[in-house]
Amino acid sequence: MTAAETPESKCDVIIIGAGPAGLMMAAWMARCGIDARVVDKRSTKIFSGQADGLQLRSLEIFDSFGFADRAWKEANHMIEMCMWNPGTDGVIRRSDRVPDVPVGLSRFTQIVLHQGRIERFFLEHIKKHSKDSLRVERAVLPESLSISEDLCDDHSSSSYPLTVTLRHLTEDEAAPAQSNGSEVRDGLFRSNLAEDDTDELIKKSQGKEGTSEVVRAKYMVGCDGAHSWTRRQLGFQLEGEPTDFIWGVLDVIPITDFPDIRMRCAVHSASSGSLMVIPRENKLVRLYIQLTEIKPDASGRADRSQITPQTIIKAAQKIIAPYKLTYEYCDWWTAYQIGQRVGTNFDYKNRVFLAGDAVHTHSPKAGQGMNVSMQDAYNLGWKLGLVVKGIAKPEILKTYQSERRRVAQDLIDFDHKFSRLFSGRPAKDVMDESGVNMSDFKDAFLKGNLFASGLSVDYGASMLVAKEGDAAEQGDGTDVSLSTVSISASKTRVMGHQDVATNIKLGMRFPSYKVLNQADARPWHFQERLRSDGRFRLVVFAGNVLSAAQKSRLDAFCASLASSTLLAPHLHTHVAVLTLHSAKRVDVELLRDLPDVLHPYDGKTGWDYDSVFVDDVSYHEGYGDAYAGYGVQRETGCVVVCRPDQYVGFVGGLDEEGWRGVEGYFRGVLRDGE
Amino acid sequence: MTAAETPESKCDVIIIGAGPAGLMMAAWMARCGIDARVVDKRSTKIFSGQADGLQLRSLEIFDSFGFADRAWKEANHMIEMCMWNPGTDGVIRRSDRVPDVPVGLSRFTQIVLHQGRIERFFLEHIKKHSKDSLRVERAVLPESLSISEDLCDDHSSSSYPLTVTLRHLTEDEAAPAQSNGSEVRDGLFRSNLAEDDTDELIKKSQGKEGTSEVVRAKYMVGCDGAHSWTRRQLGFQLEGEPTDFIWGVLDVIPITDFPDIRMRCAVHSASSGSLMVIPRENKLVRLYIQLTEIKPDASGRADRSQITPQTIIKAAQKIIAPYKLTYEYCDWWTAYQIGQRVGTNFDYKNRVFLAGDAVHTHSPKAGQGMNVSMQDAYNLGWKLGLVVKGIAKPEILKTYQSERRRVAQDLIDFDHKFSRLFSGRPAKDVMDESGVNMSDFKDAFLKGNLFASGLSVDYGASMLVAKEGDAAEQGDGTDVSLSTVSISASKTRVMGHQDVATNIKLGMRFPSYKVLNQADARPWHFQERLRSDGRFRLVVFAGNVLSAAQKSRLDAFCASLASSTLLAPHLHTHVAVLTLHSAKRVDVELLRDLPDVLHPYDGKTGWDYDSVFVDDVSYHEGYGDAYAGYGVQRETGCVVVCRPDQYVGFVGGLDEEGWRGVEGYFRGVLRDGE
Repeated sequence: MTAAETPESKCDVIIIGAGPAGLMMAAWMARCGIDARVVDKRSTKIFSGQADGLQLRSLEIFDSFGFADRAWKEANHMIEMCMWNPGTDGVIRRSDRVPDVPVGLSRFTQIVLHQGRIERFFLEHIKKHSKDSLRVERAVLPESLSISEDLCDDHSSSSYPLTVTLRHLTEDEAAPAQSNGSEVRDGLFRSNLAEDDTDELIKKSQGKEGTSEVVRAKYMVGCDGAHSWTRRQLGFQLEGEPTDFIWGVLDVIPITDFPDIRMRCAVHSASSGSLMVIPRENKLVRLYIQLTEIKPDASGRADRSQITPQTIIKAAQKIIAPYKLTYEYCDWWTAYQIGQRVGTNFDYKNRVFLAGDAVHTHSPKAGQGMNVSMQDAYNLGWKLGLVVKGIAKPEILKTYQSERRRVAQDLIDFDHKFSRLFSGRPAKDVMDESGVNMSDFKDAFLKGNLFASGLSVDYGASMLVAKEGDAAEQGDGTDVSLSTVSISASKTRVMGHQDVATNIKLGMRFPSYKVLNQADARPWHFQERLRSDGRFRLVVFAGNVLSAAQKSRLDAFCASLASSTLLAPHLHTHVAVLTLHSAKRVDVELLRDLPDVLHPYDGKTGWDYDSVFVDDVSYHEGYGDAYAGYGVQRETGCVVVCRPDQYVGFVGGLDEEGWRGVEGYFRGVLRDGE
Repeated sequence: MTAAETPESKCDVIIIGAGPAGLMMAAWMARCGIDARVVDKRSTKIFSGQADGLQLRSLEIFDSFGFADRAWKEANHMIEMCMWNPGTDGVIRRSDRVPDVPVGLSRFTQIVLHQGRIERFFLEHIKKHSKDSLRVERAVLPESLSISEDLCDDHSSSSYPLTVTLRHLTEDEAAPAQSNGSEVRDGLFRSNLAEDDTDELIKKSQGKEGTSEVVRAKYMVGCDGAHSWTRRQLGFQLEGEPTDFIWGVLDVIPITDFPDIRMRCAVHSASSGSLMVIPRENKLVRLYIQLTEIKPDASGRADRSQITPQTIIKAAQKIIAPYKLTYEYCDWWTAYQIGQRVGTNFDYKNRVFLAGDAVHTHSPKAGQGMNVSMQDAYNLGWKLGLVVKGIAKPEILKTYQSERRRVAQDLIDFDHKFSRLFSGRPAKDVMDESGVNMSDFKDAFLKGNLFASGLSVDYGASMLVAKEGDAAEQGDGTDVSLSTVSISASKTRVMGHQDVATNIKLGMRFPSYKVLNQADARPWHFQERLRSDGRFRLVVFAGNVLSAAQKSRLDAFCASLASSTLLAPHLHTHVAVLTLHSAKRVDVELLRDLPDVLHPYDGKTGWDYDSVFVDDVSYHEGYGDAYAGYGVQRETGCVVVCRPDQYVGFVGGLDEEGWRGVEGYFRGVLRDGE
């Protein structure tokens, strides 16, 4: 086929890989209405196995897209974690029970659901919101990437700096070979014990009559896994080393007298290694089993041929003795070698981005992989959407690496510590220095729990987070300092005032309390109103709107808002306004007591009744006490800028200074403000 | 076409009409695996308008089928009811706010959702559970019914007493004509202001080349509405009279300064009639508007031609003045004349049954119609399913009329009273005897609220409800007394002991409290475990299983259960066992402390972990305190038989007498026990 015959087309964003990170990215593209394509080299989506723990933050994100309820309903819910350790007699016994996630953190708990279902929810969401125009193109392989360096800084709408060649594979080429001939699916082909097959696929397909096409794109996101083809094109590395610890994974319906088989368990045997129990949906249980008898060879890599479901269950039986453990049904199995590695770079010139396993790999047992990968894309997607649409300044794309590479580094440190504690032999007594102290393990677990919830993420100062401190230090070192952007006429840096909302932390996700809709008294978790629709939210804590003094403060603030040449054109379209007041619900009337800009009028549909909420007692669901929870003064309130990903960008008083802060924040972000 | 050419087939149950009652019946048929057909004369399902309030009990039922969450998510939630009445100056003002449903009754509140969505949930459920074999056949009209009287008492599997001729209509014949040429759909063709068109359809279709078929069936259920063709074939009547009150209905997006437009409101104007506001999903509001200026003619029926959206909104504007009310978008409209009528008979020889509007009609404003109709079918469906499968005695079918006709009578009494209070002119003062006293209206509303929740239904004594008192008196007069069935060797009547579970009322629905799964500590509403799968449930309140005395009582009870020649063959297949104990969760081990019959072993999947629950504190969702809620002694427990429809059939002690009661109850119900 000659170059002249190769079809050419354009798109704004091309996403390589349709795993959780790629699908999250595609979901944002659908929600923001971006002309995007998603390609994946595999011919089918996965049907069993794979990562499956959903942490609290992932569920909050799913909820913001509107499908957390589906995952919540189908999943197994993990409530308690039990720790089993050897006693002085060497026999395992339950030493501790702790809640699986800290109490009071979120309205969700940790759940476990097959990755295939999660991908299904994403696919349906993408289909619905893109009106069918955005579909995953399977069995499509990227073959080459070239970047027009001189176009990378040209942000005009006609600038397409990237040229990607795609090859459409045949069904045969794209289906992964299973490592054995049995009916049970295994995941070795995706495990880090296997080599990547992308090059082999390219070679294979070039021998046949596959068709190619050329796509010119503005942006590209590589969500193509640990062996990322995209990363290799850019010449970026993953830094870190594998360990000697090799683990097997079985998804089975266990037949056992082990009493905690439906609990999450960490079992340390005296000398046969460790095992983790993760109960799943449909009677399945996932077992992570340390394979102490299999050692890496001279190359540092374990011999895959030694690893079968039979060798894995035998290892498990040794660990869990004296309890019996067998199975009749095995759904899936795999094995991996623990290693923690982080990408040196998360983007190339803010035109090509890497997300998920392409930039961080670690052990799967803490249930972090899929979550952190999705959250990478969740962080990047709206930024890319707003930049492509010409609403936000391209500079905000730099915050992707500064925010997410820092998270990846923290994750790797956590996993490094936790894996060694979990894979190590338990100490026999205080004199046994080479053993792991079990109370150290418990402490690490409890501390790690907050980290593992995904709710401890705290993004550093940048043009998107108006907080104090050094932007480079708080991120991964990337320069996202505000001085590069003129954020206000006087060029002073915009800074939030944390003290007016002590629990709405700058850089962290907006917490949630129950509030009532003023118009119909319905209770909502406030976070449910922070939908992932690509809009910033100006959250007006209106305070006691029935006090004359406060009403006049509110009116003044709303007058500034409604007349702002910067913000007024974006109101409700790119910057939604949500109000939470603290007066008695029954004493307040929406149309009488709250300025129009807080509940806008439409000639066809009348007043808006879905934007004003109240912190008051409900009939059926108690009292959220939201002002107290948020740490906001009931009388005077405050104002918060919430990013499209629910992270807090700015906090200030409901006054002239607060207004200038809001306007300054958006001047640093919105393109119109330049 | 001659008779010889007409195709013939057989089925167990034929359902006429695919509205909410017919679909509920079909859902049970799918769940019970019954060979059934559902036909509907219309060619399409409905897309707008129609009844749409879902009461608490309906949501509990949806939840038992597994789709309450879908309705809950899409619906508008009604939380508060506001009453507006004229002051002494004749101007309306808000006189009261009350919770829309009593607090603490159920885990649900009242919601409002378009009937078309509800039908969709049913259709998907039926499809899933019948594995596609049961589909609604649309544009199919019943033409004749003949009953072989001598076969009605023959319950052998080869007995098909009913012969039904069906005619397949063309698309043209089956599409209902709208009463006007506008784009807005109206519902006048289904309103009681319109004549039935079944006969006309039969005539029309006979003139064309429609195809006919003959179906021989064991049972038939007429869910074919107020003009029920099935009812007419049986020669049964609806008894009652229409009133003079004529109401219009508008589904619009209102543009108004009326402050409570997103609340449920009852507005009584001084002299222009009354209006009810029912806020709906997607900004829609349903308005029920009294049309005081339109009177019935000599025939007692209102002139349809006078009624248009314009005349209806004008009437609304008069009532709601001085507030303004207009709309740009109207989704649907209709009108009706209030009348309360109940069918004389709900079945013919327990072979042909009538459900829903076919046996009761009343005003729609209390949101009862669709709910009571679905609940008719919910009552009948499992009984029919178990009888067709040969599991239950055919005599239980008699309880359909005794239970549901009584409910219909109560409904009509309620509606009669409520409609008159709502349609009447408000009294000017205490001397105004022809006016309605507004505090009487409020009292009636509050009392009616419990009734309208659907949770006050209390089925009388019968072979399915082992309670004291006269069966005929507690029902509708039908003989469902126990003396007709030998219920135990000694022929004494089985009687529950309400005092061992004071809040699990015989004849009422099983209430719900939060409990934890013993095996994984997950909180559940206990009612969520009472799935509509056609199984009775033996609920064992095992008490304090760690006390030796209680453990030996429990062991003895379980030994009787496991060795019962009557029950053992049905255990887990037709009679599921659910356990709720009251010891500390962490002190109990499932395999050690609870007899096998409570968590059975399966060679392929191991022990069952989904049947034993505990009344204990959860980490994240508080304490259900279920034993206290149920009124059961924590130490000694009790045993409850719960019917497949969640109604309580028997309550007894966890002892020899209680066991004899359980066995006696099932001997009266199960066919094997004869």
